[in-house]
Amino acid sequence: MLYLIGTGLNRYGLTKEALETAKKCRILYIDNYTSIVDGGKIDELSKEIGKTIKIINRADMEEKVRALISEAKNEEVGILVGGDPLIATTHKTILIEARKLGINFGLVHGASILSAAIGESGLDFYRFGQICTIPKWTEHYKPVSFYETIYENYKRGLHSLILLDYDKEHESTIDVSYAVELLEMAETEYGRGLINDNARILVLHDIGMVSRRVQFFSITEAKKANFGHGVTTLIFPGKITELEMEALEIAVK
Amino acid sequence: MLYLIGTGLNRYGLTKEALETAKKCRILYIDNYTSIVDGGKIDELSKEIGKTIKIINRADMEEKVRALISEAKNEEVGILVGGDPLIATTHKTILIEARKLGINFGLVHGASILSAAIGESGLDFYRFGQICTIPKWTEHYKPVSFYETIYENYKRGLHSLILLDYDKEHESTIDVSYAVELLEMAETEYGRGLINDNARILVLHDIGMVSRRVQFFSITEAKKANFGHGVTTLIFPGKITELEMEALEIAVK
Repeated sequence: MLYLIGTGLNRYGLTKEALETAKKCRILYIDNYTSIVDGGKIDELSKEIGKTIKIINRADMEEKVRALISEAKNEEVGILVGGDPLIATTHKTILIEARKLGINFGLVHGASILSAAIGESGLDFYRFGQICTIPKWTEHYKPVSFYETIYENYKRGLHSLILLDYDKEHESTIDVSYAVELLEMAETEYGRGLINDNARILVLHDIGMVSRRVQFFSITEAKKANFGHGVTTLIFPGKITELEMEALEIAVK
Repeated sequence: MLYLIGTGLNRYGLTKEALETAKKCRILYIDNYTSIVDGGKIDELSKEIGKTIKIINRADMEEKVRALISEAKNEEVGILVGGDPLIATTHKTILIEARKLGINFGLVHGASILSAAIGESGLDFYRFGQICTIPKWTEHYKPVSFYETIYENYKRGLHSLILLDYDKEHESTIDVSYAVELLEMAETEYGRGLINDNARILVLHDIGMVSRRVQFFSITEAKKANFGHGVTTLIFPGKITELEMEALEIAVK
């Protein structure tokens, strides 16, 4: 049996169900390829569960995933996943592979940045459009399609939840200032006037943690912002209602 | 200090953080107006936390909310909320009221049906459009605007997550068959051909619980479906990719 176990948003994010499930697994892994796992969190979880936790990195995922899943044929194997599992495509692929090998699976849900960021923004979750991610550019990979998603949402008055790519090297999501730079590059390409001096963007940093910060910035301010390491999410708002604005003002601090 | 504490998706859904926060509150309430709270769950939570939990129903919410918030001026007051807090407008109103009275608040996140249902569907969360709710019709309240949302998403190839209204009287969300009936009524009104014999709909019942069921139904099958009491969520899919279909087939059981 294979379990995907959500660990929620912080070191104290395991539910009772997650804890009990992790305890009964003979082999326990933690996913370090779809989300950032800091060492302190692994130590904390390991102590709480009373088990060694092996780290799966991207190379393991690509090369050893089948072997890892095969272990679940005769053993209880758990994979701890930041937030709520099954959001990343990789986790679906794991379940598809498991099914091919005739292995059953169980899912334990955890708090997710998706609902947490929307909740903490003060904006109405019924008024969000499609979600997108701003990926880190490389020499040969310079995608701008996130702009299209945000623009389509905006045109319909809807808010956009924008996830920021993980920068493994820095154990952090990409910087706000860098993300805004990419938004401006995309603006140059599309030229639809979405990213301009009057535009404002909500920056949500380390939601669910003590280091939580929420700021409503102009594009100019956002370009100068420095939130340091951690997990940052952006919201590009559509039409903001009066009640939303009241809630947003309380959210910002 | 006022705490909104998410209780996640089931009786074992409290995180360590939620448990510790609830324990330090002198007065503890549970929200019974934005989500269904079964008596068993309250007993279980009360035992785990070691405290009496008072139920807030809709009448309390409308009449006594200011008194309840005022208690938090000098005491640690906690409100337990199903899933992840702040999704319902009511919770935002509570924080706005608290701010007016100069009361600080804290938030503890929990697993939410939003990410859980999307995760368990096998469908790609980047390919969901705006969320909507199908409300229970009354003699003078027969909204059909959910159709517009689903149609707009569908036109763009996007999936629609559809929450079903709570039917307090039956301590359950409205039945799938009734929800589909309302979709058909809306179809008659709009006449855009969305709800037809070829359309299929994903039914997700009691996600995160032992009674979990996921079914991919034709409209005709959905009209005859009987899932009994519990929390049901629907997904009206847009364009389904090959990988999504593989994951969806594994999700269905």
